Amino acid sequence: MKTSIAQTTHFMEIALKEAIKAKGRDEVPVGSIIIDKKNNIITTNGNRINELSDPTAHAEILCIREASRKLNNKRLFDCKIFTTLEPCTMCASAISLARIRTLYFGAFDFKGGAIENGVQFYNSSACNHKPEFYGGFNEKESSILLKSYFEKKRV
Amino acid sequence: MKTSIAQTTHFMEIALKEAIKAKGRDEVPVGSIIIDKKNNIITTNGNRINELSDPTAHAEILCIREASRKLNNKRLFDCKIFTTLEPCTMCASAISLARIRTLYFGAFDFKGGAIENGVQFYNSSACNHKPEFYGGFNEKESSILLKSYFEKKRV
Repeated sequence: MKTSIAQTTHFMEIALKEAIKAKGRDEVPVGSIIIDKKNNIITTNGNRINELSDPTAHAEILCIREASRKLNNKRLFDCKIFTTLEPCTMCASAISLARIRTLYFGAFDFKGGAIENGVQFYNSSACNHKPEFYGGFNEKESSILLKSYFEKKRV
Repeated sequence: MKTSIAQTTHFMEIALKEAIKAKGRDEVPVGSIIIDKKNNIITTNGNRINELSDPTAHAEILCIREASRKLNNKRLFDCKIFTTLEPCTMCASAISLARIRTLYFGAFDFKGGAIENGVQFYNSSACNHKPEFYGGFNEKESSILLKSYFEKKRV
């Protein structure tokens, strides 16, 4: 099933709510959501690196692990992931390993991103499964949230 | 504390035992081990992708998550990881995010590896923490194990 622009905005808003909740836990404010092919929400989550003492507990990884467990399938064929920040190299690769069909992300991450920036993993010949990807959804809200978090940290 | 060649071989043999156990669970036979700065073993594990229905359940990720939990620290400073196969892009990035000091790996993975092959993540300007890395330890045993697993799958 196609996901309309209005639906994409709706799902990104849910991801943003997870990012805000992550900020409340003193985590880098990033949130994600995975939906199935019928646009049903399978899972939502935000960063929990500090909470779980787990450097892999990025929002995307937590969503992938939970969605796979819920669907009892190591492959998330036809699923879509929405995340408020351009995925890092670990998450970009995990999204590919999970065979997710489409990635929508919010703000671009010029330093740590791995889709349009960094190793541009999906353009690499080492990438076995290349999801479709679209960046810049709800970019402003996501960027403001991240900036306010890091500015507070610097004070 | 320095890790001697004899000790490296010893730790790689433990990782290989985890790879053999993974094969017994019908997983791609890869095993890993993380040690602390005093050469004490913190954790060992093998792939559990099928068992857990989790595409991120590579041996390295499971070890990082468990070691971080055990040490109650999202950073594994001064720790070393030994793994029987050149880490993939997800695991290479996770090892960096965890601030692991040194990576020793067995067989080179010309297709899926991300250290000497693929995106060569630690040579990328996008990589914030670059662990020292050494490949080719117990390479033959690791390769034979992987080949026998995939040959059996093809029959």
